[in-house]
Amino acid sequence: MNWHPVYLKAVLGPDYAYAQTHLLPFFLAALKAHSLGLLSVGTPHAQQAVTGVQALREFMPPAYDPGVEDLFFTLDRELSRHSPVGAGALRTALSRNDLDMTVYRLSARSHLMRALDDLCLLRRTLLALATRERATLMVAHSHHQPAQPTTFGHYLLAVESALSRDTARLHGALERLNFCPLGAVAMTGSSHPLDRAYTAELLGFSGPIENTFDAVSAGDWQTELGGVLSTCAVNLSRALYDLLNWAAQGLLTLADGLVQGSSVMPQKRNPVALEHARTRFSKVLGYAQALTFSNHNVPYGDINDPGTDAQEPLWLMWQDFSQGVQLLNASLEHPVIDREHWRGTAEHGDTTLTELADTLARQTGDFRQAHAVAQALLKKLHESGRTLQQATDDDVRALGVEVPGGTVAAALNPDVFVQRRTTLGGPAPEPMRVQLEQAELRLREDMQQQASWQADFDAAHKRLWADSPALELT
Amino acid sequence: MNWHPVYLKAVLGPDYAYAQTHLLPFFLAALKAHSLGLLSVGTPHAQQAVTGVQALREFMPPAYDPGVEDLFFTLDRELSRHSPVGAGALRTALSRNDLDMTVYRLSARSHLMRALDDLCLLRRTLLALATRERATLMVAHSHHQPAQPTTFGHYLLAVESALSRDTARLHGALERLNFCPLGAVAMTGSSHPLDRAYTAELLGFSGPIENTFDAVSAGDWQTELGGVLSTCAVNLSRALYDLLNWAAQGLLTLADGLVQGSSVMPQKRNPVALEHARTRFSKVLGYAQALTFSNHNVPYGDINDPGTDAQEPLWLMWQDFSQGVQLLNASLEHPVIDREHWRGTAEHGDTTLTELADTLARQTGDFRQAHAVAQALLKKLHESGRTLQQATDDDVRALGVEVPGGTVAAALNPDVFVQRRTTLGGPAPEPMRVQLEQAELRLREDMQQQASWQADFDAAHKRLWADSPALELT
Amino acid sequence: MNWHPVYLKAVLGPDYAYAQTHLLPFFLAALKAHSLGLLSVGTPHAQQAVTGVQALREFMPPAYDPGVEDLFFTLDRELSRHSPVGAGALRTALSRNDLDMTVYRLSARSHLMRALDDLCLLRRTLLALATRERATLMVAHSHHQPAQPTTFGHYLLAVESALSRDTARLHGALERLNFCPLGAVAMTGSSHPLDRAYTAELLGFSGPIENTFDAVSAGDWQTELGGVLSTCAVNLSRALYDLLNWAAQGLLTLADGLVQGSSVMPQKRNPVALEHARTRFSKVLGYAQALTFSNHNVPYGDINDPGTDAQEPLWLMWQDFSQGVQLLNASLEHPVIDREHWRGTAEHGDTTLTELADTLARQTGDFRQAHAVAQALLKKLHESGRTLQQATDDDVRALGVEVPGGTVAAALNPDVFVQRRTTLGGPAPEPMRVQLEQAELRLREDMQQQASWQADFDAAHKRLWADSPALELT
Amino acid sequence: MNWHPVYLKAVLGPDYAYAQTHLLPFFLAALKAHSLGLLSVGTPHAQQAVTGVQALREFMPPAYDPGVEDLFFTLDRELSRHSPVGAGALRTALSRNDLDMTVYRLSARSHLMRALDDLCLLRRTLLALATRERATLMVAHSHHQPAQPTTFGHYLLAVESALSRDTARLHGALERLNFCPLGAVAMTGSSHPLDRAYTAELLGFSGPIENTFDAVSAGDWQTELGGVLSTCAVNLSRALYDLLNWAAQGLLTLADGLVQGSSVMPQKRNPVALEHARTRFSKVLGYAQALTFSNHNVPYGDINDPGTDAQEPLWLMWQDFSQGVQLLNASLEHPVIDREHWRGTAEHGDTTLTELADTLARQTGDFRQAHAVAQALLKKLHESGRTLQQATDDDVRALGVEVPGGTVAAALNPDVFVQRRTTLGGPAPEPMRVQLEQAELRLREDMQQQASWQADFDAAHKRLWADSPALELT
Repeated sequence: MNWHPVYLKAVLGPDYAYAQTHLLPFFLAALKAHSLGLLSVGTPHAQQAVTGVQALREFMPPAYDPGVEDLFFTLDRELSRHSPVGAGALRTALSRNDLDMTVYRLSARSHLMRALDDLCLLRRTLLALATRERATLMVAHSHHQPAQPTTFGHYLLAVESALSRDTARLHGALERLNFCPLGAVAMTGSSHPLDRAYTAELLGFSGPIENTFDAVSAGDWQTELGGVLSTCAVNLSRALYDLLNWAAQGLLTLADGLVQGSSVMPQKRNPVALEHARTRFSKVLGYAQALTFSNHNVPYGDINDPGTDAQEPLWLMWQDFSQGVQLLNASLEHPVIDREHWRGTAEHGDTTLTELADTLARQTGDFRQAHAVAQALLKKLHESGRTLQQATDDDVRALGVEVPGGTVAAALNPDVFVQRRTTLGGPAPEPMRVQLEQAELRLREDMQQQASWQADFDAAHKRLWADSPALELT
Repeated sequence: MNWHPVYLKAVLGPDYAYAQTHLLPFFLAALKAHSLGLLSVGTPHAQQAVTGVQALREFMPPAYDPGVEDLFFTLDRELSRHSPVGAGALRTALSRNDLDMTVYRLSARSHLMRALDDLCLLRRTLLALATRERATLMVAHSHHQPAQPTTFGHYLLAVESALSRDTARLHGALERLNFCPLGAVAMTGSSHPLDRAYTAELLGFSGPIENTFDAVSAGDWQTELGGVLSTCAVNLSRALYDLLNWAAQGLLTLADGLVQGSSVMPQKRNPVALEHARTRFSKVLGYAQALTFSNHNVPYGDINDPGTDAQEPLWLMWQDFSQGVQLLNASLEHPVIDREHWRGTAEHGDTTLTELADTLARQTGDFRQAHAVAQALLKKLHESGRTLQQATDDDVRALGVEVPGGTVAAALNPDVFVQRRTTLGGPAPEPMRVQLEQAELRLREDMQQQASWQADFDAAHKRLWADSPALELT
Repeated sequence: MNWHPVYLKAVLGPDYAYAQTHLLPFFLAALKAHSLGLLSVGTPHAQQAVTGVQALREFMPPAYDPGVEDLFFTLDRELSRHSPVGAGALRTALSRNDLDMTVYRLSARSHLMRALDDLCLLRRTLLALATRERATLMVAHSHHQPAQPTTFGHYLLAVESALSRDTARLHGALERLNFCPLGAVAMTGSSHPLDRAYTAELLGFSGPIENTFDAVSAGDWQTELGGVLSTCAVNLSRALYDLLNWAAQGLLTLADGLVQGSSVMPQKRNPVALEHARTRFSKVLGYAQALTFSNHNVPYGDINDPGTDAQEPLWLMWQDFSQGVQLLNASLEHPVIDREHWRGTAEHGDTTLTELADTLARQTGDFRQAHAVAQALLKKLHESGRTLQQATDDDVRALGVEVPGGTVAAALNPDVFVQRRTTLGGPAPEPMRVQLEQAELRLREDMQQQASWQADFDAAHKRLWADSPALELT
Repeated sequence: MNWHPVYLKAVLGPDYAYAQTHLLPFFLAALKAHSLGLLSVGTPHAQQAVTGVQALREFMPPAYDPGVEDLFFTLDRELSRHSPVGAGALRTALSRNDLDMTVYRLSARSHLMRALDDLCLLRRTLLALATRERATLMVAHSHHQPAQPTTFGHYLLAVESALSRDTARLHGALERLNFCPLGAVAMTGSSHPLDRAYTAELLGFSGPIENTFDAVSAGDWQTELGGVLSTCAVNLSRALYDLLNWAAQGLLTLADGLVQGSSVMPQKRNPVALEHARTRFSKVLGYAQALTFSNHNVPYGDINDPGTDAQEPLWLMWQDFSQGVQLLNASLEHPVIDREHWRGTAEHGDTTLTELADTLARQTGDFRQAHAVAQALLKKLHESGRTLQQATDDDVRALGVEVPGGTVAAALNPDVFVQRRTTLGGPAPEPMRVQLEQAELRLREDMQQQASWQADFDAAHKRLWADSPALELT
């Protein structure tokens, strides 16, 4: 074929390179499954097709020939050299349409499993750090102002909670992805007999995608993955906002191997691992949008948009997602936390004032009024040049609320603040113990589920490539 | 308060208007649940709070006062007028942080249930049309070229399959959304006793969001919803590509009430309902991105970005999604299909050639060669000015493949083409029957699931507002 | 017309409401211009059309009739009641295609002029604040670590510089937008005579859009506006990152009317005006994407996607952009800057170390080595528990670099640091003076340009609606 | 340095590879300019720095050493080996901050010039095809329905008009991009003397970016480029919608080298070059969004987000944009147009009815009524089983409008339709001649402007690297 030079350079060349680098094993697997499927329904010469594909692996990777359209036709040609009969049979009821979509799903499944591993590793690191820092006092902000004392461990558990939801989203995406297009052929199936359930099983899929038109057309697994990774990316972008902010104030310091200096400012120790994690998640969001655009306002049918040409943005998205998660994980493995500095932010400032209002409300039964009294107290203190920490029981009494001795000092102590927050899910030791326990359990279950899926995929792979004696005789 | 005029005009005014129009019932419900929760743990004066909130409904909607910050403080003031003791008690362990997030989730849940209703209605319409048109011959395209005969019903089932996956995605989103932030207060819970499981149950939630920091900070339910609606929107944008294309060719005509004319071109009957559906889905994608941006690179904590200020894009997204789905549904209720025209596209052209190749492969056991022979045949026909339909058995024999009499005519018949596609999920009558049956079943199950959820929410609502005799005594 | 209820509710109703609320004056103006154009080329009865449109304004707004398709046909009907002859003539060589696109561009032009006003006001506020704070010492961060002393005024000028580029982008967008579709009729012009240059001039356009197909099809002015506002939005989102960060640390405090408290935390004074500005810019980015999606993969021709249905996201984009800019402007009018606190961050810490290295390099001619010496010095100081401020000339000499007495103290003084940064565009007083002067000049020129455009539009408007005596006689 | 393995693998390794492959010449140029700048202000040993950088080119590319942070430090080390004195001097008043940003702008400028070349080539191809097909009758659609006859040339000129606006946008982006960050050093300039205007000139920039903080922080040139390429991408996505649609109907056929077949459907000749162009533009939109996200809600200061980490999405965006434009250009170089088929669509159907209404309006002076009459005529014809082409003058007279003999036949002739559309910018021969002439002129001016810029950049480059005798003596 005499390709237009632009077409060769912009399309066929890069597509071949991508397929050979990233997809070859999935092509071979899908062809092997198809050949076994043909054998199972008694297609003539199917045995040669099976043996041929089995043997094909020894000639991999094939040599690139710019005159051949793509990897499929390169494999087809290679097979026809070693087994012309097998090659002729293998093409029965097979189209690049169903083959490619099968390969793309196998590839996505493999990336998805790795992303789940990365994510669960990060969750484990977060739980370890939350355990270590479960009593580390900090000041939580709201609307960019100091709000209330809590613990660093409590914050970390919030982030891990979001990631546990992201894990569930990825599980759902995997369950919807893991169906097999093989046997849809061009889009209507075939007039040759086919056992779609069998080939699906051989490749570790949960079953075939029922409607054959849908099988070669659907791109929703791509946009779902884009959506789920985007949700996780923005979750983590928010955690990175806080972590970088704390790093900027010296509350948190990264290990040496994750820090870069400056060519001009000799004092610099930049927490770049966190910064690069942030950029990875920003890029994930853009690459996910490339998938959305690729699936937007195009026919529901077999086209390149959610097919071959979506593989690049998918790959970029997986890569940046994993890099971002791994960089964040590395940063949180052994960060130095300046606990004294952090405690200081809770011991000064006005963030314990809520507890004083709560305390007064317990006296009066009226939080509305207690809030007003606390506010008035703070105003009075500031006007007289005193800090909240210098408030006394008499100051409160002067505002009309009777309190027992020691009330104010206790209420303004940040440790007391935290210890009294025993609400379900709060930062006090007991709810923290419960949360940590449940989070560990939840993570363990997720990892077991993933291990079980992976074992299924591995077993299918092993079975697919096992040499059967019958085949050896051919 | 003397608000800056810009702040009043750009923020407080529109926010109040939005809350009163769209959120008031959810505010009242959450406050009622909180008051009952306070009562259940023995908070002093909680009974007055319960009675007060119960009575508050009679004074709704409240009068807008630009001097009052927002709807919450307006309700708070209204309540304090009628029940100062109740108002003082109600504020115990309550923050706008947890209250707002509860309200936003209740609102989203309600929108989500409606979107599911719309989507399932469209699926039902698609199945009805697929049943009606299950034997309507059409030519499927791939890569924007005529590819193979199939049936319109087969195509419609492909689209419905995608929507059934979208339904499952929405179910997953609902399951993750339906947890209750109430009791998280500012972000650390409270030093007052609280029964978060009870208030969650009162509002029909599956339970409380465990971590209190997470409860007031999480925005991932928003980006998940954006992602899921985006996936559904691109699925439907693809169906609309095809439907509008068929409308442009006169294959499909909308009912009169969905068509607009032209002010200058007297012949025009524009399928605008479909076009407006397309624009709705394009806008859904942008509004979903507004949610992604709102959650991107902001603190993981209580802020307005995934809070109050995300409500507008959320509402726009729900609205455009429902409008798009409803417009598409209306368009597919009673479209006129020009079956003869459509059949003509299958009876002419070259789209049955695959079946000829398949037939030859059944003779020779070599599809590779059969494909080449079919290609050569077509070339020869075109060179001699004949159409594929004029091909004879002898033409094939001349190319070296022996075929029984009648082979070519049968293979080139589009009806035969479809009847022979008996592959699982293919367009032949039997697999179509199976697909339709399973699709109906799947839809019924989804609708039952939704009805069951809705019944739970309704029951909780009824219970929440039931006057208990004890309350009447207060 | 018996519209389908869904079509009426989802499309015609809201479209009418939008047109009447936001577009009516532009419709009247375009119709007036068209009627004058018809008159100028001698169209029969054009004078009645002119008089009729002139009179039509008195019956505005028209009563909504759900049986009439849209605002155009409502105006057409209204006109035909008062002037049937004029109404019949007015429809000559007129289509909703060119009329709508003319109206949408007039509307966009008006929004664009307001956005430019907002933006230039913000630039003026930034320059005033930069002048006020030109000597306010601060520490600039890079990679989220303290980097070098500079002044707050220097930082503000950087932000204003970005906005001056955004202004230039908006000017370019206006120049490309301000062409007139009128006379393109459906898409091919007309067989009636038309003077497109004249009607364009009447509406204040720079001229007609030449190609008539382009005139009714082009949506690139929408995506250009989306792109330009997005660029400005991300610029401002970055400034907001810094401003909110400084507000969180108490370095910057907003005026009372821009601050909200908490319902539970009595000490809270949240800088919400800045936070809401951030959310506005996030939403601008999403609404701009809605425009991109609306223009993506649709025909290049007259369709609703970049037509009627793009008006909602356009409007939302303009609104949120203006709100964001105005909120930021209000916040920067009279912020309280804690100059002592800020100076403290420069006087402690290690951010003057670059100047020490620079000083050493002036001694040795080798910055590479000087950087290493400065780094070694800091390490040594930290190891001996000393701060950088405690470094002496002897400490440096001990590392092998001879320095005159007083070298180190001068180099480590942040005021000296800034005074020595006399590089073009640097923070020293002289380059700051130059920058402020040039920025003022640039802003003045931009505002003059805008005033000149606005004067042209106003003059055209006045001319368009001036009653000519001839008309009165009709 | 002992980098964390994740950091090395996810960040430093790929960044080095990218810099060496794509940025090395720009690094060398910027260093050369900096050295000449130092020389010009009399920095000690600057001459050695100049000679050293000049010589450095012979040792390129350097060997990768994973222990060295990045390409800058690799070059620094390489230089220090050959010229320790020069290396020490070169680091004076130089930071990676200003150096990197200079390099990124040089790289973007080079990509931008290539994109402009591609775009203008496509415009030239469009004009050539529009000239060739200026009289090819076609039916324009609106709202996905046949609307009016026009010519293919008229349509192509509409598309070219959009691209001429895109060219202007890119010119504006170039003018804003082409300023030099060098001399900003870390962000505050330096205490060493610097001549920023001189180094800017040496690199072909229009001048320095004035504010030094802005110089190292600004990312708006990235989002502007993303916005402009996005606008162009959606413009072209719309043209591709039409072209693919026409290809699907056989109206337009691509040359052989741009077409792919099917592995299963022997008749297939897919217009894949157009389809791949569409996917390129979809991806451009996503990659542009990656830039928007990278610049969103991050500090206005020196960070990696709009720095090093934006280079990958920028490169992807440029690549896909150029590929898309080139594929479209190749497709339009020699497409086969089925003119008879296309003419047939204009000769049948109802698309000339506007001209009949226009003709009647010329009789009556009332287009409103004429439109109604034409509509009634069509209804009557359809009811009696006749086509519009079978309408007679008497049919019209029967509806109450007197017309001279031959009126209807002339009005319904599509050639007449087009010939009468002599409106400025319409499809009649005379306005088409004018449009083609002006479009050619506009393109020529744009290309001259670009050639002039390129000549400036080339001259600066030549001057930069010219060996001066003085240097040779060193």
